[in-house]
Amino acid sequence: MNEQVDFMPGFVENGSVTSPAGFRASGVSCGLKKSGKPDFAMLFSEQPCNFAGTFTSNLFPAAPVQLCRERCASRETVRAVVVNSGVANACTGLTGYQSAVQMAEKTAARLGIEPEDVLVSSTGRIGVQLPMEKIAAGINMAADQLSADGGHAASEAIITTDTRTKTTAVSFEYEGKTVTVGGMTKGAGMIAPRMLLAKPHATMLCYITTDAAIDNATLGNWLEDAVDKSFNRITVDNDMSTNDTCLIFANGASGVKISAGNGEELFRKALVMVVQYLAKNMVMDGEGTTKMVSVEVTGAASEADARRCAKAIADSMLCKTAWFGCDPNWGRVLAAAGYSGATFQPENVSLDYDEMPVVRGGMDAGTPEAELVEVLRRNSFTLKLDLGAGNASHNIWTSDISYEYVKINADYHT
Amino acid sequence: MNEQVDFMPGFVENGSVTSPAGFRASGVSCGLKKSGKPDFAMLFSEQPCNFAGTFTSNLFPAAPVQLCRERCASRETVRAVVVNSGVANACTGLTGYQSAVQMAEKTAARLGIEPEDVLVSSTGRIGVQLPMEKIAAGINMAADQLSADGGHAASEAIITTDTRTKTTAVSFEYEGKTVTVGGMTKGAGMIAPRMLLAKPHATMLCYITTDAAIDNATLGNWLEDAVDKSFNRITVDNDMSTNDTCLIFANGASGVKISAGNGEELFRKALVMVVQYLAKNMVMDGEGTTKMVSVEVTGAASEADARRCAKAIADSMLCKTAWFGCDPNWGRVLAAAGYSGATFQPENVSLDYDEMPVVRGGMDAGTPEAELVEVLRRNSFTLKLDLGAGNASHNIWTSDISYEYVKINADYHT
Repeated sequence: MNEQVDFMPGFVENGSVTSPAGFRASGVSCGLKKSGKPDFAMLFSEQPCNFAGTFTSNLFPAAPVQLCRERCASRETVRAVVVNSGVANACTGLTGYQSAVQMAEKTAARLGIEPEDVLVSSTGRIGVQLPMEKIAAGINMAADQLSADGGHAASEAIITTDTRTKTTAVSFEYEGKTVTVGGMTKGAGMIAPRMLLAKPHATMLCYITTDAAIDNATLGNWLEDAVDKSFNRITVDNDMSTNDTCLIFANGASGVKISAGNGEELFRKALVMVVQYLAKNMVMDGEGTTKMVSVEVTGAASEADARRCAKAIADSMLCKTAWFGCDPNWGRVLAAAGYSGATFQPENVSLDYDEMPVVRGGMDAGTPEAELVEVLRRNSFTLKLDLGAGNASHNIWTSDISYEYVKINADYHT
Repeated sequence: MNEQVDFMPGFVENGSVTSPAGFRASGVSCGLKKSGKPDFAMLFSEQPCNFAGTFTSNLFPAAPVQLCRERCASRETVRAVVVNSGVANACTGLTGYQSAVQMAEKTAARLGIEPEDVLVSSTGRIGVQLPMEKIAAGINMAADQLSADGGHAASEAIITTDTRTKTTAVSFEYEGKTVTVGGMTKGAGMIAPRMLLAKPHATMLCYITTDAAIDNATLGNWLEDAVDKSFNRITVDNDMSTNDTCLIFANGASGVKISAGNGEELFRKALVMVVQYLAKNMVMDGEGTTKMVSVEVTGAASEADARRCAKAIADSMLCKTAWFGCDPNWGRVLAAAGYSGATFQPENVSLDYDEMPVVRGGMDAGTPEAELVEVLRRNSFTLKLDLGAGNASHNIWTSDISYEYVKINADYHT
């Protein structure tokens, strides 16, 4: 590996969805958010893009999700995606679907491309129709402001209860040319994605751009794998959204063609770096989050058991409130493992918080509690549970639950 | 039915576990709770009792749960149960098991009965060994104070984060004699029981007494059914405990023999009245609870779908925080139904909050929001979701999530 060191993927300073060549973006305010903050984003590629998407598996997919799925199935390339925040356009029936179609049509007309070249996303309150005059105004403003360094402006416009934007880019060299993968995401609540290829879910939205040339089927496979290693391993509140969407666009502007076995390893590594960075930042910016906990379950009898057990701990209200209170309370962790449905023998279970042993043989390992409290005070720590029942493992990134989470969600509406 | 009206089960004023004939109980302080509040309860029957139990399905069953399961399998009758709060005796290994055995032995010696005639329960912090000197002192004091009106004192001693005791009794007449069923329960957090016969789970503890004579197998079957209609349908925080226990004792002191087809309907009705009363009161006294929501799902394709869907809504953090904030936010209810795994068509879904239509055909029913807010302000309301996919139904009683819940559980340890 040493001789390849210069070619390995690395983060781009101040990277965004417009870091890859040939992409332009913008973010504007069109009056959907009462605060007057940016609420409409546009991402445009100078060249046709191959693309793929993963979407919520919720049975109430929002209208824009339905439209994106159809385009994923029927189109070879697209050119643009427009995103509004403030209104989710979910549970809005035929009228909602027609609004999504019109949002694409108006964007296409303004950009001089085909309506089917445009994808749409919405995030915000469920059950409210899109105010189409505001959307139309947003489209015109956003088209006017498209720019090659508009990635950060776009990321400002897609957020809702997020406290900060989440954007990054990674580049690597292949056959003497630079390939860049950029991404932006939003989401702080209703976060428990379990997105499926061309069928996603949770209100997280993620847009990934690359200037590599890659065919749709390959993009889809690699995106699915990357999403499984990132967004599908995070949880804030175990509430899966109606709008979760992760789209990837590849416009080939770098002049580099990537395919299975040709630049595959570098590209997939870069892609996973981008999505894991975005996913972890979503958890750290989760509604009311004060710390991120990486729950790692090893020694499970099966991958399904490992996932089940990690998920039970990651979603346990009692674990999450104990983490908020910096309480090492390992009994709550074991209780969650015990009801998770995973199979194991209690006496074979070990637990560690970062470098500290907590449980050995299913009982207290004897580490002084004050030392465990120190670990809990960190902004981020790893909870390692070994079930002693096999060789399978799984990890999930989760957050604590604070007063602020309750406040945000009890007050969201008013 | 009219001619039987005098015989129907009705609540006994100020009822408790000592309302049925032949039971004595007590509650004392032996120093397990730092507050000095009562922490040790004893329940004793003058005659041998038939009995049955349901217990947590958690893979880390507490030592007292293991002991109770063994006695349920091996004993025909028992005479007493002792319960300590403050320490759960869970994840305590062989030492913990031996402590549970000793707790029964010491009680038996003091009461002049066989060690195997005694059942034990513990609730409190996981992973801590029982301080046996304090337990021994508790046994002596509790034995001294046993009394035929000690049911309320016992219920004071079993509670932990509960703000009030939960006890009741129901009586009916059969063949000219009065039969009484009494009960007490504790539990405010780590409440998501799914107890199985002779294998229970959640820290809820429940003790039911009756002066009817009923054989163990019949008691077990009827208890299982009653638990399925009550405790297994409640949730506070979706965290199943290591200690959940529900025990029923039948001492025959009323002189009435009940069996399948002979007094069955009256007895089972009385039993369900007792456990549903206790279960609903547990939810209303859930940690930080400000309101109880009865989630009723109808029109499901299967009973499993109905349960899955009701459970997803009942455990949704976003629904629970919205209820706390009196926010009608029905989008969160539909989103939870959508990710629950139940099968249905979005356009066939209806939702009502008490008497108010909220969703029709998967979309806003048009009821003014102010009217929905009025329903949400009630101490208790029913959320009725019709999936329009079949004839199966299920209901779950759940609570909201408040700042207080977070406070209680972030501070529990310190």
